[in-house]
Formats: sequence, C-alpha cells, structure tokens
Amino acid sequence: MEMETFKFICTPEIVLGNGSLSSLGEKIKKFHGTRVFVVMDKTLSDVKNEVKKTLDKEKISYFIYDEIVSEPTTDSGNHAGRLAKEEKCDIVCGIGGGSSMDTAKAVSILITNDGKVEDYQGMEKVPKPGVPKIMVPTTAGTGSEVTFTAVFIREKEKTKGGINSKYLYPECAILDPGLTVSLPQGPTAFTGIDAFCHAIESYISKKSNFFTEAISEKAMELIWENLPIVYNKPGDIKARSNMLYGSFLAGIGLVNAGVTAVHSLSYPLGGLFGIAHGTGNALLLPYVLKAEISEIKNKLSKTGTKITGRKCGAESFIHELKKFEKGLKIPEKLSELSIPQNTIEQIAEGAMKIAVPLENNPRTFTKQDIIKIYQKAY
Amino acid sequence: MEMETFKFICTPEIVLGNGSLSSLGEKIKKFHGTRVFVVMDKTLSDVKNEVKKTLDKEKISYFIYDEIVSEPTTDSGNHAGRLAKEEKCDIVCGIGGGSSMDTAKAVSILITNDGKVEDYQGMEKVPKPGVPKIMVPTTAGTGSEVTFTAVFIREKEKTKGGINSKYLYPECAILDPGLTVSLPQGPTAFTGIDAFCHAIESYISKKSNFFTEAISEKAMELIWENLPIVYNKPGDIKARSNMLYGSFLAGIGLVNAGVTAVHSLSYPLGGLFGIAHGTGNALLLPYVLKAEISEIKNKLSKTGTKITGRKCGAESFIHELKKFEKGLKIPEKLSELSIPQNTIEQIAEGAMKIAVPLENNPRTFTKQDIIKIYQKAY
Repeated sequence: MEMETFKFICTPEIVLGNGSLSSLGEKIKKFHGTRVFVVMDKTLSDVKNEVKKTLDKEKISYFIYDEIVSEPTTDSGNHAGRLAKEEKCDIVCGIGGGSSMDTAKAVSILITNDGKVEDYQGMEKVPKPGVPKIMVPTTAGTGSEVTFTAVFIREKEKTKGGINSKYLYPECAILDPGLTVSLPQGPTAFTGIDAFCHAIESYISKKSNFFTEAISEKAMELIWENLPIVYNKPGDIKARSNMLYGSFLAGIGLVNAGVTAVHSLSYPLGGLFGIAHGTGNALLLPYVLKAEISEIKNKLSKTGTKITGRKCGAESFIHELKKFEKGLKIPEKLSELSIPQNTIEQIAEGAMKIAVPLENNPRTFTKQDIIKIYQKAY
Repeated sequence: MEMETFKFICTPEIVLGNGSLSSLGEKIKKFHGTRVFVVMDKTLSDVKNEVKKTLDKEKISYFIYDEIVSEPTTDSGNHAGRLAKEEKCDIVCGIGGGSSMDTAKAVSILITNDGKVEDYQGMEKVPKPGVPKIMVPTTAGTGSEVTFTAVFIREKEKTKGGINSKYLYPECAILDPGLTVSLPQGPTAFTGIDAFCHAIESYISKKSNFFTEAISEKAMELIWENLPIVYNKPGDIKARSNMLYGSFLAGIGLVNAGVTAVHSLSYPLGGLFGIAHGTGNALLLPYVLKAEISEIKNKLSKTGTKITGRKCGAESFIHELKKFEKGLKIPEKLSELSIPQNTIEQIAEGAMKIAVPLENNPRTFTKQDIIKIYQKAY
C-alpha cells in the first residue's frame, strides 16, 4: 500500500428536487450575477419560459443563446463566447445536455480570457478564472455539471479535444428531474449508459480509492436500477431523479478518479464519424471490459453482485451488461454505425492519442490491443 | 420531493497509506506552520518518536502535550489551550482517539480566541477561526478527523457538551493504519461500533440524501466486513486500513447528514456515569433501531442485504447486528455497566436535551419513548 495524498473535489452547491429550476434566479443573485448568458438547446422552449420567469422574478437581465447543436465545434464555442463578451454578461448558465453545458463552461472562461477555444484545448491551459457557472442538466447524463472539461470538435482536423481546466468546475448544479422527462427514449438510453461508463470506469481506474469507489458504486447502482424504468416509463419522476443523482455521482467519480480506456476508444468515433459520445461509450464498454477482465475480476464480480442482486462473476456481469444494453436498444456493433472497417487502424491511432484515460486504465493497452477491441466490436 | 440545497463538506486533504505519519512534517510546512502543538495519548510512545523524526526532518519546532485522558473535561481542554498559547504554537496536530483529536481541535480555536472551552460549547459560538489542524486518528474511530465537534465533560454539572463550529473542521487527515494495530481488542470493538453508529445513523437521518447515503453505505460495508477481522487479527494492515476508511466515511456521513437518537440517548451515559462514548452507542444501537423500525424498514432491509450478503429483512438485520456486537463482546444491557435502574428517568431527561440528533431522527421520540428504550436495554 503506497502513500497517497488525495483531495476530494465536488461541485460546492447542489440544488435537488422537482421544480428546482425555479431557484435559478436566486442562485444567480447569490453569485452576484447581474446579467446572465444562458446557453440552452433550441428544443427546450417550455424550459425557456421557466427560465425567463425565475430571472424576471429576481430582476436579472439575460441573453439566451439557444443555437446549440449536438457535439459542438470550436467555431460554435467561439461564436457563443464572442456574443457573451459583447453582451457584457457576468455569469453563465448551461441548460441541456453535454453540448449546452460544455459550451456554457467554455463561454465562462472566454469572457475573461482573450484567446479562442482552440488555444485552451489540452490540460490547464486557461490563464484566468472565468465568471461563475451554474449547470442545469436535462439529460442524465454527461456529468458535465461536475466535471472540469468542455469538449469541442475541431472541424478541420476532424478531432475532438477537451478544454481541461480547474477554472471549468461549475459553482452550482441544479438537479431538476422534471426537465428530463421529455427526453426521448434514444438519448435517455445513451446518455444514461454514458453516465454508467463514468461510474464503472472511475471505479476500475488506477486512480480510484475507497472514497471514489463509494461514489462510483452508488452511481452504478442508481443507474442500473433506474435506467430501464425511465426508458420504459419516461414520466416516472422518482426514477428520473435517481438517474440525475446517479449521473451526478458518476461525474464526481470521474472528476476524482478519472475515466479509462472506453473513453479513449470512443473519442475518435465522435471526431471522425460524428458518433454521439454516449453511443460510442455504450457500444464499446463491454468489449473493453472483456479485454481487461483479468485485471478487474474482483471488482466486476463485487459490483455485479451488488447491482444485479445475485451472485455474479466477472464474465457473467459483462454478459448481464450486454443484455442490459440490448434492452435499451444500444447498437451492439460498430458496423451498425456505418463506420468503414478499413478505418479501424486510423481510429486506433486516434485512440492512442487520448492518453490520460489510457494511463488510468487497469491494463496497459498497445495499439494492437486497441485494434483487436475495435475488430471484436465490429 | 421537496426542493433542497445541499453543500457537501469534506476534509479537504486526506493522506492514505501505511507509514503515512511520516508525511506530517511536510504537511505542517504546507500549512505554513512553524511551531506545532501536538496533542497525543500518553500510551503512544513509539508514535511519539515517529512524530519527532518527521518534525525534525522538516525543522519544525514542537511542544508535545501527552496528558490526554479518556473523555476529557473542560478543565483539561483549557489547560492545553493555555499551554499552546504560552508556547506560541501556530498549528496543532491531534494524534489518538477522539479525546486527543477533540482536544487538539479545541486548542486550535483557544489559541486565537480569548475565551474558555465552556464559552464555546453549543452551536457556532466561536468568534474567530483557529490555527490549522491536522488529525491523525489511531482508533477507527470517532470520526473526529472530519467532524466540526469537540466534546468535553463539564465536571461540576456532570454533563457532556460539544463545541460545534465551522472553525473546527480539520484541514487535513492522515490515515495511517500502522498506528491502529496496537489498539487493544476492547477499544477496537467499541470505537469500531461507534463508527458504525455514525454510518447507520447518518444513513437513516432525515437529513440524508443520495450523496450522503452513498458514503454511509460504503462506511457500513467496510466496517461490517473488517471489524471482526481486526478484532481477531489485530495486525491485519489491510483490514485496519479499511476500518480507518470506513470510520472516515462514517464521519463524512455524520458531518453531512447528522447523527440521530442513538447519540442523544448515549450522551448522558458519558456525562453521568463516565461510560465511553463508543460503548454507550454500541449498546443502545439495536434497541433504538427496533423502536423506530416501521420508519426505517426499507433502508434497513436494503442495507442489511448489501452488507450481510444475503436477503435480509429489517427485523433480521437487527438480529444480525446483535450477533455482530456479541461477537465483539459489546455489553448487551445497561445493567452490566452498573448504572442504577432508578436513574433512568434522569438519564432520559438528559437525552431529551441533546436535541439536534433527535430532530434528525426518522421517528419523533417522546421522553416516555426514550424511557421505554432504556428499560428494554436495561
């Protein structure tokens, strides 16, 4: 047992409960915001009215930016940042899935720094803190309401890159399950499994410890129990709540213990072929776990037993996981995503460049190992 | 589901690992300490040498105060505080069980404030922040390395009272399992069950939520699995480690969700009859759970199933808990502790005054309810 110093990081303020979006105005006031730049999905028109109501009530002026598309590009991030600067906003709010929240986080630091998104992609490249950021996830989810990352596609190079900076940690997360009930089945499934990936990857990460494991285990349990419920009964508020909690905890696991190889392998699918982050992760998860099963046997069997409620070896847990994903209509093969088979080597090269998750991985994967995983998943 | 705002509190820096006491000097330097007031148990003479070594290495001057007795009084707290002031210490370190750590926490604020322990007993009565505090538990434990409480007996009034202040939160905890291997069987058992009480009480507390539940559940699991091991094999470093982790997490549960009626009922046993805090909690736990079983049925059955590894109703979990405590030779009846039966009403009056834990309790207990619990436990 080595000596290790550990600092636990967590979004400092969390608001829970159905209808809690109504506290947004108050929270903005608490953070001394006077004009808020709200980034949200175009589709959320009911939510927009709710937002206006809570802001008007507290007499906070606003600029609502609802041009968010899935998997945002550096150009779209820069555009939002320029607007927020022109509009002299002193606080930002991201309402939506990862795309809206990531954009809001980037806007926060683009307001106070002079560069562009591209200048800050990488690790700790942001010189100055941004304005405060309040996150309201409407999917459960990407965990962006707790993480220090904002991901943007560089269109020219067809790669995805994250701004990773301590200045991106949100100050406040509002977890309102009512905002997630209208999420269609597809995104409910793949964002839910994305959160499950954060939970299980942080759980098996080399950087995990007793504290992060407590969080990751609870996240897995909540998601495993509630994702099938919300998939089949979208209006179940209690299950939607539990999914937001699970996704939030999975994000805390991710922040404190990191993610692992699944994320490295999934990243280039987004950059090269526009595959949604959650779909890529979900599809690859069982194949990656299988490829490192000897390193994670005990952990998988322990968690499998806990979340399935019956004695479960590592192999049979992966089997259960495949069944679980099938029930959510997650694609099982890369070939279903119209990815040409002859690009696998190129994809693997992209994956090798996503180095940090590979370093956290319980098993060291070579490029050959990664190619094999893609081939099995094809 | 009500709306609720929640701030998660956690000791910001945690050092883990066998031998990690050797990092004490470095940590003190990090907190800009130049002269440290070390509070420790007299019995820890080997540890004292280790402490001197790490402080000498970093050229930090020190005053070692090792006059700590179990269940410290306000007089002893004031004595230590005066000494630390005279010795011009600018940082404190508590090494030991709850008594040493609580004293160190009190000394921290007595250095910077003018009053005495008695002036600050109660809620948030401390005017100014203290000097930094580093905690090194040698029992697993009281959770004092994470909590904002320092408990002292007022000898005249024969009552126990806590200083509860945001200024008592420790800045750093060093969790070194090697320091706990020499703890005798008795204290290993009752401090371990004390930690279990923190875990289960915070779990069933009205103030619990998805986040604190994750922490409390893991704490219960770690303690349930490892306490019998360390009781029977005191030198098992891995199990001792897990006990420190369990106790730490239980403390985090306590800080964020509070404790409940068990603590209210146990407090006066300490004040009136000098019963060790852990023993009182341990003895009363199953009786209190039984008295509120209808309110906590689901939670007990869920956690019972998880930690015993087999389907377990609430009743049968309490039964398992009694067996578990019996295996640790925890006294089963108040009559074994030479408490006169005719003092029960007086004890119950004392318990009613420990109001906050009673407010957190899932069931509202009247004085009559509490008398009944003591009688069943007699």
